[in-house]
Amino acid sequence: MQYHVDGELVPVEEATVSVRNRGFMYGDAAFETVRVYGGEVFEWRAHADRLRRTCDALALDHGLSDDELRDRIRETLRANDLDDAYVKLSVSRGVQPGKLSPGPVEDPTVVVYVADLPRGGRPDRGKEPVWDGPATAAVVETRRIPDAALPAHAKTHNYLNGILARLELGDEVDEAVVLDSDGNLAEGATSNLFFVRDGVLHTPSLDGPILPGVTRRVVLELAESKGIPVEEGTYDPADLRSADEAFLTNSTWELRPLAAVEGTDGESGDDSAELGAGPVTERLTDAFDARVESEHYE
Amino acid sequence: MQYHVDGELVPVEEATVSVRNRGFMYGDAAFETVRVYGGEVFEWRAHADRLRRTCDALALDHGLSDDELRDRIRETLRANDLDDAYVKLSVSRGVQPGKLSPGPVEDPTVVVYVADLPRGGRPDRGKEPVWDGPATAAVVETRRIPDAALPAHAKTHNYLNGILARLELGDEVDEAVVLDSDGNLAEGATSNLFFVRDGVLHTPSLDGPILPGVTRRVVLELAESKGIPVEEGTYDPADLRSADEAFLTNSTWELRPLAAVEGTDGESGDDSAELGAGPVTERLTDAFDARVESEHYE
Repeated sequence: MQYHVDGELVPVEEATVSVRNRGFMYGDAAFETVRVYGGEVFEWRAHADRLRRTCDALALDHGLSDDELRDRIRETLRANDLDDAYVKLSVSRGVQPGKLSPGPVEDPTVVVYVADLPRGGRPDRGKEPVWDGPATAAVVETRRIPDAALPAHAKTHNYLNGILARLELGDEVDEAVVLDSDGNLAEGATSNLFFVRDGVLHTPSLDGPILPGVTRRVVLELAESKGIPVEEGTYDPADLRSADEAFLTNSTWELRPLAAVEGTDGESGDDSAELGAGPVTERLTDAFDARVESEHYE
Repeated sequence: MQYHVDGELVPVEEATVSVRNRGFMYGDAAFETVRVYGGEVFEWRAHADRLRRTCDALALDHGLSDDELRDRIRETLRANDLDDAYVKLSVSRGVQPGKLSPGPVEDPTVVVYVADLPRGGRPDRGKEPVWDGPATAAVVETRRIPDAALPAHAKTHNYLNGILARLELGDEVDEAVVLDSDGNLAEGATSNLFFVRDGVLHTPSLDGPILPGVTRRVVLELAESKGIPVEEGTYDPADLRSADEAFLTNSTWELRPLAAVEGTDGESGDDSAELGAGPVTERLTDAFDARVESEHYE
């Protein structure tokens, strides 16, 4: 496998950055995780826009156009002969003199990571599932970083908050459900959260400290086009536990049913709840698959 | 200059980590900044203890003893013929399979960065100052990350909060004074904060989201030994602005007088305040210099 690092394709084993790179020293870098179907990036415009907003939040003026970034992704896909893939695109502030305060970005470091990732699909529709079935989750103690400390819309290499959340989980649990400082539902460590009650699709509003997920937005568009009522709001964990259906979204998981939410201690118990897919999750999953099919394979 | 990376001394230009290193991808790493005087690390025990607490918070079990870590620092100092130096010691979780949830640490990455840094001193005592005189600061809008999201006692490569704080500053301002979520004084982006009023030394208590600085603790010990009254408490920015003296501490700055605190907009104005050194700051600076002298040069 080859990655694209600092303008060149290099074998993974030789893909390095300086220990003085601000991405390593401070996590001073922006990234996007994108999905490639049939050789083309899914929702590239949305990812490019979000990357730009992240870089704006960090005052990281890398000087590369969206097209140049996409060209590097394409070049990396071609070099590895990949049609269906996971891609991580990272832009760091590079090496600068040894001060915390950043200077003008003269030599940003762009890294394109790729991995083979077959298109997902539901086994009942004759496709192999990419993931090991529905996810389980637990509500964790670690709280989401407030916007006043680090804007949640910025997708950066400062990911310890999500790692601490995941570290609270037992081995059998896939995702951490993270609450905001006030105890309201925010999101998963690497996913957005949806649940269905009485036929209405609910998801935490972007007024909270929540990453504006690209898959999240696609799902909301699909719900609207299918006439599924949607409410973006402020919810507490009991709202999730009492739901009829629930699922998680991100670029790699697409829509992943949430089978169960365990208690804050990560153990089954009185406050654990069985959830899972259902008619709304299935309609939206079908609609998502159809959108991928029509945009990338027809 | 040579750094120590992954068990070996290498020229700075060749000092690299994999782009898959979790330190680069997620800032998933702990660090200490230490000062070397006369060839020996100042307050090594305190730094080693804090590094261990950081690694505990991250569940980063690197398997190296304190002595092994200090040996790597000493080896790097010898290789570069440095007696008085700045050292950054970093331990990351290394490369692991491509998941956010960390696995057992099998191959941690230890990096020792060094730079020549002459011993500081006050010009009125016949020594060259290392820094360009007293610092100026401004109270910024960016708030400190609450402990519930990322424990402040953990010194990690997730440093964007401090970078965003510094980005708010004008070119002429040295340090950002960061408040906690409730608007109380927390600390500087890379320093702890002290002020003096009516002969009493004040500093924000560690009950808030504050790094327990090694220099901070030394200063508190010195104040006690000199009979200077100390109060660790909860303060707002007005307490700092109305102080008689103020200074910042960290391992590289030691005690650095705070000449002025500007308004939240980073501009001089009605709420800016002139501060500076004074008798208490000078007594503590002398006591600090004497401690360094007696422990490292006599």
